[in-house]
Amino acid sequence: MSERVVLAYSGGLDTSVAIPYLAEQTGGDVIAVAVDVGQGGEDLESIRKRALACGAAESVVVDAREEFAADFCVPAMQANALYMDRYPLLSALSRPLIVKHLVAAAEQFGGTTVSHGCTGKGNDQVRFEAGLSALNPDLKVIAPARDFAWTRDKAIAFAEEKGLPIDVSAKSPYSIDQNLWGRAVETGFLEDIWNGPIEDVYDYTADPAEPREADEVVITFASGVPVALDGRPLTPYQIIAELNRRAGAQGVGRIDMVEDRLVGIKSREVYEAPAAIALITAHMELENVTVERDLARFKRSVDQRWGELVYDGLWFSPLKDSLDAFIADAQKHVSGDVRMTLHGGRAVVTGRRSDASLYSYDLATYDTGDTFDQSLAKGFVELWGLPSKIAAKRDREA
Amino acid sequence: MSERVVLAYSGGLDTSVAIPYLAEQTGGDVIAVAVDVGQGGEDLESIRKRALACGAAESVVVDAREEFAADFCVPAMQANALYMDRYPLLSALSRPLIVKHLVAAAEQFGGTTVSHGCTGKGNDQVRFEAGLSALNPDLKVIAPARDFAWTRDKAIAFAEEKGLPIDVSAKSPYSIDQNLWGRAVETGFLEDIWNGPIEDVYDYTADPAEPREADEVVITFASGVPVALDGRPLTPYQIIAELNRRAGAQGVGRIDMVEDRLVGIKSREVYEAPAAIALITAHMELENVTVERDLARFKRSVDQRWGELVYDGLWFSPLKDSLDAFIADAQKHVSGDVRMTLHGGRAVVTGRRSDASLYSYDLATYDTGDTFDQSLAKGFVELWGLPSKIAAKRDREA
Amino acid sequence: MSERVVLAYSGGLDTSVAIPYLAEQTGGDVIAVAVDVGQGGEDLESIRKRALACGAAESVVVDAREEFAADFCVPAMQANALYMDRYPLLSALSRPLIVKHLVAAAEQFGGTTVSHGCTGKGNDQVRFEAGLSALNPDLKVIAPARDFAWTRDKAIAFAEEKGLPIDVSAKSPYSIDQNLWGRAVETGFLEDIWNGPIEDVYDYTADPAEPREADEVVITFASGVPVALDGRPLTPYQIIAELNRRAGAQGVGRIDMVEDRLVGIKSREVYEAPAAIALITAHMELENVTVERDLARFKRSVDQRWGELVYDGLWFSPLKDSLDAFIADAQKHVSGDVRMTLHGGRAVVTGRRSDASLYSYDLATYDTGDTFDQSLAKGFVELWGLPSKIAAKRDREA
Amino acid sequence: MSERVVLAYSGGLDTSVAIPYLAEQTGGDVIAVAVDVGQGGEDLESIRKRALACGAAESVVVDAREEFAADFCVPAMQANALYMDRYPLLSALSRPLIVKHLVAAAEQFGGTTVSHGCTGKGNDQVRFEAGLSALNPDLKVIAPARDFAWTRDKAIAFAEEKGLPIDVSAKSPYSIDQNLWGRAVETGFLEDIWNGPIEDVYDYTADPAEPREADEVVITFASGVPVALDGRPLTPYQIIAELNRRAGAQGVGRIDMVEDRLVGIKSREVYEAPAAIALITAHMELENVTVERDLARFKRSVDQRWGELVYDGLWFSPLKDSLDAFIADAQKHVSGDVRMTLHGGRAVVTGRRSDASLYSYDLATYDTGDTFDQSLAKGFVELWGLPSKIAAKRDREA
Repeated sequence: MSERVVLAYSGGLDTSVAIPYLAEQTGGDVIAVAVDVGQGGEDLESIRKRALACGAAESVVVDAREEFAADFCVPAMQANALYMDRYPLLSALSRPLIVKHLVAAAEQFGGTTVSHGCTGKGNDQVRFEAGLSALNPDLKVIAPARDFAWTRDKAIAFAEEKGLPIDVSAKSPYSIDQNLWGRAVETGFLEDIWNGPIEDVYDYTADPAEPREADEVVITFASGVPVALDGRPLTPYQIIAELNRRAGAQGVGRIDMVEDRLVGIKSREVYEAPAAIALITAHMELENVTVERDLARFKRSVDQRWGELVYDGLWFSPLKDSLDAFIADAQKHVSGDVRMTLHGGRAVVTGRRSDASLYSYDLATYDTGDTFDQSLAKGFVELWGLPSKIAAKRDREA
Repeated sequence: MSERVVLAYSGGLDTSVAIPYLAEQTGGDVIAVAVDVGQGGEDLESIRKRALACGAAESVVVDAREEFAADFCVPAMQANALYMDRYPLLSALSRPLIVKHLVAAAEQFGGTTVSHGCTGKGNDQVRFEAGLSALNPDLKVIAPARDFAWTRDKAIAFAEEKGLPIDVSAKSPYSIDQNLWGRAVETGFLEDIWNGPIEDVYDYTADPAEPREADEVVITFASGVPVALDGRPLTPYQIIAELNRRAGAQGVGRIDMVEDRLVGIKSREVYEAPAAIALITAHMELENVTVERDLARFKRSVDQRWGELVYDGLWFSPLKDSLDAFIADAQKHVSGDVRMTLHGGRAVVTGRRSDASLYSYDLATYDTGDTFDQSLAKGFVELWGLPSKIAAKRDREA
Repeated sequence: MSERVVLAYSGGLDTSVAIPYLAEQTGGDVIAVAVDVGQGGEDLESIRKRALACGAAESVVVDAREEFAADFCVPAMQANALYMDRYPLLSALSRPLIVKHLVAAAEQFGGTTVSHGCTGKGNDQVRFEAGLSALNPDLKVIAPARDFAWTRDKAIAFAEEKGLPIDVSAKSPYSIDQNLWGRAVETGFLEDIWNGPIEDVYDYTADPAEPREADEVVITFASGVPVALDGRPLTPYQIIAELNRRAGAQGVGRIDMVEDRLVGIKSREVYEAPAAIALITAHMELENVTVERDLARFKRSVDQRWGELVYDGLWFSPLKDSLDAFIADAQKHVSGDVRMTLHGGRAVVTGRRSDASLYSYDLATYDTGDTFDQSLAKGFVELWGLPSKIAAKRDREA
Repeated sequence: MSERVVLAYSGGLDTSVAIPYLAEQTGGDVIAVAVDVGQGGEDLESIRKRALACGAAESVVVDAREEFAADFCVPAMQANALYMDRYPLLSALSRPLIVKHLVAAAEQFGGTTVSHGCTGKGNDQVRFEAGLSALNPDLKVIAPARDFAWTRDKAIAFAEEKGLPIDVSAKSPYSIDQNLWGRAVETGFLEDIWNGPIEDVYDYTADPAEPREADEVVITFASGVPVALDGRPLTPYQIIAELNRRAGAQGVGRIDMVEDRLVGIKSREVYEAPAAIALITAHMELENVTVERDLARFKRSVDQRWGELVYDGLWFSPLKDSLDAFIADAQKHVSGDVRMTLHGGRAVVTGRRSDASLYSYDLATYDTGDTFDQSLAKGFVELWGLPSKIAAKRDREA
């Protein structure tokens, strides 16, 4: 039986050319799978047809936007996932979802090999392949860019030679990955890390420096899931999409950083993630109000590990499952409203209210009505400091 | 021999009144100690004289601004210390320094008791008393506000009764603590956590929403210590003071949060810390460039523990010393320049350069000159994902 | 309405005397509650009657041995809970269970206050009171030993004065707490930490140095729960009881350590925990076989925190719940058999087998049948070491 | 100029054969380097000559026993390094030391390539190559077993063909690595993890089940370094060697476990480490006495990371340096005597004394002389449990 190759298909030049190329290389059929994770651009039907026009045996398109929002973006927000305190993991979140649909297509159409367009020096190859080996360890993998040193120039030559129905003229200086959770941009001049980004780099966000009216939004959470904006019940996808528009219009969510890749090198990355930054900011503050102190402190180490693990391509892994169980339990009471001002590149919490609040006005106030018994403090303070005191005494004697 | 009480003296109403009050309560002498940690306001000489006018037996003033910057603020920046990812620990940093000078005065003047003005529901009582017991476990402590339920109204009545030379008319609605590293504000209407702060609350920062020209600054670090601004060599104190002015003028460093106090309650806090936020942001990015990945990952847990420990009043403690040793080693190569734009409430890094950089253009670039050997990746990716793959296979069979 | 005091009752001198004493002190009724957590000794009915004879208004006895085993000891084993790598938390586990039954009795009989016999320098006061405030924050607490400086001598005098039906002659030099999970001993001569324990201190364990035949046992686990010994299905209680006998007869589980108490002091403790040590040892090795590496590594930090938290009296706390969720997920596949030799104070694993094993003979063997592809290693090794290599190069150049 | 290959030489069959083999493969000279890390066996001079007899251009032998003890074993003990709570890292410690001497020889003799005998599925290849790339990133590496699928059978055939002066008849069923810190054994029948080890597997330890007299030893530490046995000042090497004999004679230090290798598989390992286990046990208990609680708690996570990092081959890495700085600071006061009984496979601490002790008899005792102020406890306990109490109240209301 001939090989059947399931290709992660975007509709663009590289993966369109890959269809006949993989067919040639493997002597088998190519099944193109395109997944909508909110990246915008063309409609799915056009993409589906283009794959067939390029010679795909089967062409599958999946609208996974609600699934991406609910099952990938929301958990990331619950983990306050910011790799290196900055990067909201946007590409790292979409890859396991795409893998899931590639594996489903492989099982539906008898695919034996999966192909992706990642290079050998990025993180995404790991996310694809670790995901694939977890979901179906029998699938083989071909990564033409990495394994056959396939380049854009070769792709264009091949497209012209084969007369493929794709436009090879457009040449962007930017290498872009975008989805509902944000947008990543790489480009040559940013590889000099002393250079600053220029305005042309950005697409999801307006210039934060431009004067405009502030926007105020109230985000409602129920057990760690965003469920409404300004009182209107919405799905996670709708909330993220609307916040991308509104926070993006205020220039919120631009990130420029040097980042530690899993393959061992540092790279310069520019991101835009308006909704991600607004939601994580709001969620952290609602946790401040509703999560008990010791749990909050330990959850920071859980959150950090969650972010590293997902960055490192291990979405489908036993540790991820157990961290998720911890986080799910910790979200039980993360319910309530957070009011934010979106303006000038900032997403600032100005108010929070919750039926599950652990903030007690009576205990906190210095005004009439204070119920905190200050007489307890002296004993607490003395025993709290006792180990250090004993150690200090020892040190003085030494 | 009579008691000698060393009083942490601010020059304000409460601690001025405490001078005759403590003398009465203890039948002993009062030694007033005022420490300049960059809080601004009156000159030290006026403060020194007022203590004597109120009946102090000795009055000591200490200009500790350079010491505070170099020995307390810079280490906090090296630890990227943001308690609960937000609060730069400003009061938590000044207390151990004040304690150090109180203990020195006690040793100089034969003090047997130390007195501070903290209440029994805040964090500062712990920072004072844990510090005192570590530096001199023989000193006793009196905290009139906590131990004798001493209040502002009682203080005013006492001042009038004794005819003390202090102005009792000024009544600010705000409870403020400020120093070189920032400013903390508490006030009644903010105890409703749904209320947003009003502009009147702020003093170190201009309104970020007001249009103005951006300010660009280059900060130079040497082994984790800021040593120059825009190429001008400066002391840490000078750098922090200048950044407070420049970043403050751009509205950088406003913080509004619900916070977990050590005594077990949640409180609402508003802070301004322009220099702290600018410096920590720059320092984190320079670490991204110069600190190796595994070290950077583990340092996050060290940094978090450092921040909690200092927040919790344990500056003088064995764990603090060992964390400091870790951090000092990790700062060896944190040298170089960071260029930032200060504008509209944002402190944004736009460039970084360092002789100790671990960023390698040759390894990172996708252009000509790429030296990364992509053929290594396949083996890496497969073994990286192997444990999850074996586990996934087991799970599928179960 | 008069006060009703719920007393944690052991049947011994101190708590028997406490019945009339608390009645006198509070002018209310005393409800005695005795909980069997496997401590052995008298039958429950005798204890129940003695409380009434001493004047209790109500006397409740609870056989909580199966509950203690299943809901407290098994979770501790799943967390491999050894505080300071040594102490299996025996008292720390029984206190929250006793608290649960005290609160239930208070709710059943209208109790308004709870009384326990702990001193003010131990850990158990915290475990009682933190547990009580979590389960019913309205209950008040009286701790006569701590709050009224009640001592054994006073108790004896009071018993004789009141003619209570209890034997006051027995005077053990040991202060003992024991239950199904182990036995704790404190005594004066061990307060000199250079002194070694004498054989008389021990009761659960035979002298490990005495020659005897080894005992071999196979323990079967299902999802982290011990379910059979030598193929015989048993409840957790039965398994722990049998292992206490069998491992105890071999001298397994003696512990002698200096320990950090929550109240800030170090104390010298001697424990015996034959079943606990045997079960934890077996469980850890079964985890080695069935838990994936990254999960196993992170679980160590979860386990450590779990042990500290339970030691510190916070069994009923939000963090405990979330850690439990993590651990429960991690136990899904911890199923299989562990064969141990119990002998001469050692509990040594000699074999393990599991349908959920992640150990693969084919991948591990160096013999024929090896399926590990060694050609993958070179790329893995190079990229694994790349960050350190880049850093080393930088350091050499500096 | 011709290639010069520096070979990690053991004197055994495989590496002896490698000398002419590498010369053939590379067309260059072979420089044999043998390092004595306490593995016992032949004298260094015989080994040195054998290399020359096999055709080495240079033959270097290094007695690194004191260096290994002081700079590798002692730091491991200070980190209480037990990978997966069991394995004292013996091979993981010797590899970086051997690497250091290989690099020194390469620099001395103009070596351009380094060769080691590790396979592609073990940990040691990583330890060699990550170490080499850190110490001299310009050196190339050849691993014949991995890169050329070189096997024992091929080695024997090659030896006979070339008439090398080595005995090829001896065929041990065991694969052994041993040094001063312990001994590792792998063998076919143990690859079935249900099989128990047989007595023949062991060499450093006597059968713990055999009756014999107990041995008592007093180990003296100064700032975390073992400096004397039974009052006799000794070097670390001498202490470890003596404890290997004495603890080994009592059957102390046998380990049998399933272990997570860095390359992603689980393997079954049997170890003997009498001195390592005795020293780590003693050191942990002395830390219990001399290290403050918070430091001790955090040090556990530092120790765990240290052990993982060294296991994973990253001895020469920035994180290792910073962890070392932490540990060095934490060892400042780890001074004093520990008395242990070595008997029947157990190394049991029975006494400890230290001028730097934090254990206070006066605070700990329940007898006359108790200086602990129990009245402080009530306030401490209430505030300690306050966060959980507030959360419990919230949960009850929900």
